[in-house]
Amino acid sequence: MSISSIQAGLYRIPLPVTLSDSTHGEMTNFELITVRLETNSGEEGVGFTYTTGMGGAAILSLIERELTPVLLDSEEDRIERLWETMWWRLHYVGRGGLAVFAISAIDIALWDLKARRENKPLWRLLGGHDPRVLAYIGGIDLHFTLEELQRQTAMNLETGFKAIKMKVGLPRLREDLDRVAAIREVIGDNIPLMVDANMRWSVEEAIRASRSLVEHNIFWLEEPTIPDDVPGHVRIAREGQLPIATGENMHTLYEFRRMIEAGGVSFPEPDVSNCGGITVWLKVAHVAEAHNLPVTSHGVHDLHVHLLAAVPNASYLEVHGFGLERFITHPLTIEDGMAIAPDRPGHGVSFDWQALETLREPT
Amino acid sequence: MSISSIQAGLYRIPLPVTLSDSTHGEMTNFELITVRLETNSGEEGVGFTYTTGMGGAAILSLIERELTPVLLDSEEDRIERLWETMWWRLHYVGRGGLAVFAISAIDIALWDLKARRENKPLWRLLGGHDPRVLAYIGGIDLHFTLEELQRQTAMNLETGFKAIKMKVGLPRLREDLDRVAAIREVIGDNIPLMVDANMRWSVEEAIRASRSLVEHNIFWLEEPTIPDDVPGHVRIAREGQLPIATGENMHTLYEFRRMIEAGGVSFPEPDVSNCGGITVWLKVAHVAEAHNLPVTSHGVHDLHVHLLAAVPNASYLEVHGFGLERFITHPLTIEDGMAIAPDRPGHGVSFDWQALETLREPT
Repeated sequence: MSISSIQAGLYRIPLPVTLSDSTHGEMTNFELITVRLETNSGEEGVGFTYTTGMGGAAILSLIERELTPVLLDSEEDRIERLWETMWWRLHYVGRGGLAVFAISAIDIALWDLKARRENKPLWRLLGGHDPRVLAYIGGIDLHFTLEELQRQTAMNLETGFKAIKMKVGLPRLREDLDRVAAIREVIGDNIPLMVDANMRWSVEEAIRASRSLVEHNIFWLEEPTIPDDVPGHVRIAREGQLPIATGENMHTLYEFRRMIEAGGVSFPEPDVSNCGGITVWLKVAHVAEAHNLPVTSHGVHDLHVHLLAAVPNASYLEVHGFGLERFITHPLTIEDGMAIAPDRPGHGVSFDWQALETLREPT
Repeated sequence: MSISSIQAGLYRIPLPVTLSDSTHGEMTNFELITVRLETNSGEEGVGFTYTTGMGGAAILSLIERELTPVLLDSEEDRIERLWETMWWRLHYVGRGGLAVFAISAIDIALWDLKARRENKPLWRLLGGHDPRVLAYIGGIDLHFTLEELQRQTAMNLETGFKAIKMKVGLPRLREDLDRVAAIREVIGDNIPLMVDANMRWSVEEAIRASRSLVEHNIFWLEEPTIPDDVPGHVRIAREGQLPIATGENMHTLYEFRRMIEAGGVSFPEPDVSNCGGITVWLKVAHVAEAHNLPVTSHGVHDLHVHLLAAVPNASYLEVHGFGLERFITHPLTIEDGMAIAPDRPGHGVSFDWQALETLREPT
């Protein structure tokens, strides 16, 4: 069998509510890039990636112009080989960034196809450790008032979440600490609370923040500074008082290996939609395991629930889908604060293509 | 004053002769991406980048859709600020790869504009160290027969070159050594000879090659393995017997800092067209200087001659322009084996836009 057609799509999805963090400012929409891959025997696999609003047309261009021609007529189950082909084809303009977003979307489609053919959910195909995955709800809420923050948090508890992440990184640390205290007030002492600075701080600022935040019993401090600064992360981890999570902006296995080995991260956080797809996500998870570390996730929870359910070293799943649940048939199931990996074949994400069509981005 | 218009173009340039190396196979054309930037007072700056044949349409898309809107109406001489704006705008899909190619092309146009306004050649504006720059001719010739290799080399000597680079990385090291010997036979003992493996080798293969090549008096060994493997480069440098050059596939200041600081490179080789433009190229040169290292270049010699002429720690300029000289008014001057930085304002590269038009790539 071989790949007979690849159809890519770019959609601009409006957000139900405006989101904000310390780096990306206010976000009103995001870009969804989809890949529908068919074999000559009529089987299908679906992959996707997303951006925070920029670069989607470039990703589409890479998929359509540069990758599709080398993938057509290839044997669809030689995923490692196809991955290598894509990586080297785009290497001169790649080694990260947009090229890896494009590769990720295709890799996810290849794995979906493989699992659907075997009539298995991805989480079983990939390891089948435990379909019940610890989950937290990720708030993107830096511009919320204290009142809005508390209201959102109370709602999240009512919905059944038992762990919460919030944004930090305001100009004054005092403001961040007040916001953390306001959320702790609502959730009490026993709910895990993560904070995410979105790379806003210098190393010294991050160390200072880490030492101040520790009294609020913070589960992890995410992206304290830019991912390029590995020695900086090591200092923040050692001289601060909180475990570090990072990874959503790291796009190669090598970057993860380096940060993990240096001791700059306790919760590696690969995003399957931008780290190189399922092929690389699993390798990052394995490198983490080899360093006695858990693995967590970023965004696209419908995919990550499978990956965290597959491996033995899963930490929390981030539940945050940019409102994509409006366009998929079976949104993620949360039970008793846990996310449940579905038993549908493949990743089990069925897009409402008709609804998406109205949001197709002109290119 | 402010930026009033940005026009980008994508051209597919056929190569005069087919080129080949150990990674990219045979290359018959490359992509040129240009940026023409105008201010509201009618001044112009021109920038450009290139690819080995893939990804140009995606770069064009980034320039037109994502970067142009934030640059229009900005003050054109605040280059550091504009650079930062571009970097963060594309950060989620960036931190390297295509995003940096797009930023590079615009950054080069901004510097060209600045120098033209001051009526100075770039090399004087940027430091003015010495307009005469050591130069070598870069052969991309892995598929040449021994005879073709020797003929090309003899021609290069006749043209006046006094340093030569050749490709290595064939399946058997013995073949590489024979080719090196064949070139040494033509050039004698006193002409510096560099070899370039285009990341083909494992670390062990590279160490073995380095130890074998040393008897041929090799000036540097370029890209022995993938740039992601910093500890590997350190081993090749220490356990092998040749100085290492690398950088054409490194796209951030941070990557260079890391490789330099680790001791994995003796000749850092930033490419202004893909490392972030003149702004980042200079910073890499300064980091190299702070480590008591020279800086060299990759491709686009019409730009790099200015940069190497500007700084005090210049090593050799690579002379290799993918045949772009057919489309520019004043090709690089070579005198007595040295490249001469021109005294025309800006970078002094005037494209023949009319001739290029026939090669415009449909998008």
